[in-house]
Amino acid sequence: MFEKIAHIGVAVSDLEAAVELFTKLFNAQPQRFEEVRDQKVKTVMFEFNGAAIELLQATSPESSIAKFIEKRGTGVHHISFVVDDIEREMKRLKEIGFELVDEAPRYGAGDYIVAFLHPHSTNGVLIEISQKRAPSTGR
Amino acid sequence: MFEKIAHIGVAVSDLEAAVELFTKLFNAQPQRFEEVRDQKVKTVMFEFNGAAIELLQATSPESSIAKFIEKRGTGVHHISFVVDDIEREMKRLKEIGFELVDEAPRYGAGDYIVAFLHPHSTNGVLIEISQKRAPSTGR
Repeated sequence: MFEKIAHIGVAVSDLEAAVELFTKLFNAQPQRFEEVRDQKVKTVMFEFNGAAIELLQATSPESSIAKFIEKRGTGVHHISFVVDDIEREMKRLKEIGFELVDEAPRYGAGDYIVAFLHPHSTNGVLIEISQKRAPSTGR
Repeated sequence: MFEKIAHIGVAVSDLEAAVELFTKLFNAQPQRFEEVRDQKVKTVMFEFNGAAIELLQATSPESSIAKFIEKRGTGVHHISFVVDDIEREMKRLKEIGFELVDEAPRYGAGDYIVAFLHPHSTNGVLIEISQKRAPSTGR
């Protein structure tokens, strides 16, 4: 079940400059800085009432964020939803014809496991589904 | 003050097909259908806990949605925030160097007045700010 919009991921080329810009825009401070090694990104979250803006800077030219910016420029990269059961949702979505980027959930920011859907099966929108990791599955 | 993320606007070329697709994706029904004549769009909202996905189809080739799709294809078009005082925010943002598309608020979906910021001053993200209209200003 899709429970809520967790965040909107925004690809930036200079995280420090982007944090300064969005701090001015929102007139509010960001809440969390994090590096997600699996995805080769550094992230900063601006949290609002229930959903967040996640700024993402690539830490390697191999990162999908670097490739995205090369192709499309900076801007909205993905929308992330919290689901109650990520494996069940992945199975359901696959069965009804959505194309998954990930065969199995992988590590995301903020102690979530995540999976992406191919944007060409979702009207050009890159969708991430995510589920909070149980403490025992942490690494 | 930026209070919350209201919705994420997604440009679609065929609203009916997109509603069917996102209904399957979210496994949930949309909540509101609306035509916004000022912006030459038809919209459908999928509401989540506090924020929504707004599908937008142009009703005229002059609509900014039609122009967006021509240039970039279907996909995320804008992020909309609720602010407490739209005119004060517009003044504040202008004074600190953000570029506004609108000189004055205009009518948006769902009884809101809205204004857009130019994406080239906001890291490639088209930002909408919005404020609920007072009942007496309705038309």
